[in-house]
Amino acid sequence: MEILIKNCIFKGKEQSILIENNKIKGIGKIKGEHDYVIDAKNKAVMAGIVNTHTHLAMTLLRGIADDLPLDEWLNNHIWPYEREHLNPEFCHVGSLLGCLEMLKSGTTCFFDLYFFEESTFKAVEKSGMRGFLSQGILDFPTPEYEAGEAIRTAKKFIEKFKGKNERIKPALGPHAPHTCSSETLIAVRNLANKHNLKINIHISETRDEVKRIIEKTGMRPVEYLNEIGFLGDDVTAAHCVWLNDNEIKILKEKGVCVSHNQVSNMKLASGIAPITKMIDAGVNITLGTDGCASNNNLDMFEEMKTAALLHKVSNLDPTKMPAKKVVEMATTNAYQALDLNCGIEEGKLADLILIDLKKPHLTPMYNFNSHVVYSAKGSDVDTVIVGGEILMENREVKTLDEEEILEKAKEIVK
Amino acid sequence: MEILIKNCIFKGKEQSILIENNKIKGIGKIKGEHDYVIDAKNKAVMAGIVNTHTHLAMTLLRGIADDLPLDEWLNNHIWPYEREHLNPEFCHVGSLLGCLEMLKSGTTCFFDLYFFEESTFKAVEKSGMRGFLSQGILDFPTPEYEAGEAIRTAKKFIEKFKGKNERIKPALGPHAPHTCSSETLIAVRNLANKHNLKINIHISETRDEVKRIIEKTGMRPVEYLNEIGFLGDDVTAAHCVWLNDNEIKILKEKGVCVSHNQVSNMKLASGIAPITKMIDAGVNITLGTDGCASNNNLDMFEEMKTAALLHKVSNLDPTKMPAKKVVEMATTNAYQALDLNCGIEEGKLADLILIDLKKPHLTPMYNFNSHVVYSAKGSDVDTVIVGGEILMENREVKTLDEEEILEKAKEIVK
Repeated sequence: MEILIKNCIFKGKEQSILIENNKIKGIGKIKGEHDYVIDAKNKAVMAGIVNTHTHLAMTLLRGIADDLPLDEWLNNHIWPYEREHLNPEFCHVGSLLGCLEMLKSGTTCFFDLYFFEESTFKAVEKSGMRGFLSQGILDFPTPEYEAGEAIRTAKKFIEKFKGKNERIKPALGPHAPHTCSSETLIAVRNLANKHNLKINIHISETRDEVKRIIEKTGMRPVEYLNEIGFLGDDVTAAHCVWLNDNEIKILKEKGVCVSHNQVSNMKLASGIAPITKMIDAGVNITLGTDGCASNNNLDMFEEMKTAALLHKVSNLDPTKMPAKKVVEMATTNAYQALDLNCGIEEGKLADLILIDLKKPHLTPMYNFNSHVVYSAKGSDVDTVIVGGEILMENREVKTLDEEEILEKAKEIVK
Repeated sequence: MEILIKNCIFKGKEQSILIENNKIKGIGKIKGEHDYVIDAKNKAVMAGIVNTHTHLAMTLLRGIADDLPLDEWLNNHIWPYEREHLNPEFCHVGSLLGCLEMLKSGTTCFFDLYFFEESTFKAVEKSGMRGFLSQGILDFPTPEYEAGEAIRTAKKFIEKFKGKNERIKPALGPHAPHTCSSETLIAVRNLANKHNLKINIHISETRDEVKRIIEKTGMRPVEYLNEIGFLGDDVTAAHCVWLNDNEIKILKEKGVCVSHNQVSNMKLASGIAPITKMIDAGVNITLGTDGCASNNNLDMFEEMKTAALLHKVSNLDPTKMPAKKVVEMATTNAYQALDLNCGIEEGKLADLILIDLKKPHLTPMYNFNSHVVYSAKGSDVDTVIVGGEILMENREVKTLDEEEILEKAKEIVK
């Protein structure tokens, strides 16, 4: 199958992009007959966006409780709701809704950490998206399994789905150093090494967690994780709000990727992650939305803008987090962390999006990266292609039935 | 003319809203024949949003220079560009583009401060929006007039347009206490009193400005403005980033409205305005986008979310700036400041918007205010009505030719 995207704006001028099977075959002036032609006049092409930390099925908990102290939010709202309602069907519908939302805002790949990941796998498979799915691993009882059953549940998921779909990779999701014992974390490390899996984990989201780890281990969270041999370049660490300089140094040395979730960190008032310090230290920074209960959407354009704004003001320096760097966080930095051979380049995987520039808020255009970060919204994404497959065109998702999913989502939370 | 909006979601249930001429005539179950019927199934009604500080024609400078130190941004980019390019035609096209963008993101009224406001007046008149337009007043030469000509230019504008259009009110725009002498500021105060006009002014956007005012007057900016008798409840003060407790007290005592422009303050790294302190002190807080060169769009939904997020994290308290309060800032607080008899209530002016809830990122819905602040975007606004006139329906702006304006905007900046 060959797809020609003609007249799209790339690097400041109109060009064509030829896709053959799952890869980009050519960029520039391209003639001849092709199986499918997309006329991208007034549209700009951009590499597919990666959301490196979310809890997908939580789309169904979007706005269920806001503006509350963290403990009250978790203990009185999120956890009781999850205990009562989470099941495979709920997570399947929530994941379908999440895929729909991500496609409609230009996300082509994401790293999930939640429960009943088999249900999420099936939803992602249907959507055609790329995903890293990690079964949540905690030592205490969860809506899915009893205490002590986490590693067994994760193993089962990995064995069942490893190699099943080239776009979807099972991964490991140890929740956090304060909810997993060192035995559990070491078991995760061994599984990751054995099966060559990526790991997603929460690190130092709140000050309270850090205090608890220090009380338990005498070390700060990153130091402790390093001490037990958990860290590596296969780890994507979400949040990392409360780190000291030594912890930043360790993350760099071990090649750990950080998933900066600033909208969630702001909404829950967790704090401002020292991202500019981490950048200066050479840590690989990517962006994530976190779950919809603390955001309350999956729009990576919002994440990009908020990341740029927050670190400018918190450093009182408008030169921090320039647009180009922020776009890299949402694309190339994530490709590096997840070993994805993506980008708008010949021979790379054809994961790309078209942004419709024919909008008042995108007129005029002086600089594309500035537009992406400061002016655009997820709703400006017109077309999404993953692995050479058109998943959305003219904002119509081709792989999922939008009407049906919205109805099911409303039904299931009634 | 009677318009019936049927099946719209209001206060959690489906209701109808009847508009007669420019006012809301009834809300609830409404039967009978009407001139025009809007079926608002799956749409929620919300009172029209007010942007209390912008420089509308700067839409044409959107993204012209970003990520730069403030001085370099102003002195090497914005001001030279304005000196070379600003003229009535430029400001007319920029204002048409701005109105288009505001309508497409649910803003029904705005407070402008810029140059060649006659051009803006004509654009706003065409759009059907509500606006307060203030001719920028500065002591030094501007792209529009020579030094010393500011008050004369402003007077001319006021005399020409006062009472000309019931939706558009001329206003006064003294730029700032460091760019206007006390004589100029007192002349503005006298004009405001004489003609019953609203005033828009920048106060304490940067630390440097504050320093300069203290050096010049021995007082902090708000103290100085109070001392010369400038402040009153007809003043909307933009930014107010660097205030001390006494200045906050004065703003409250004088009934000054604050236009919080946090996206611009973050992007330019001006600082974080002490908004939660001002709220506690009883100051009336509203929201503004500032000009597109420092934002880079006019989306008030983005302003609402950013305002909520920023003050939660900067206070490390997730209960600060709850969604309902933020919605009030964008609506009722602004109505109060600008003497607008608006709101979704019988007898009020029919300035309202419909939000299309049939979207993945707005499904499911537990709480409408939470959706408005945390999940929605300007692009979810489906219909805009101002003064009983339908300005946009199904995202099609009826009063402006979108295609033509986008072309003109691209043409003029070439």
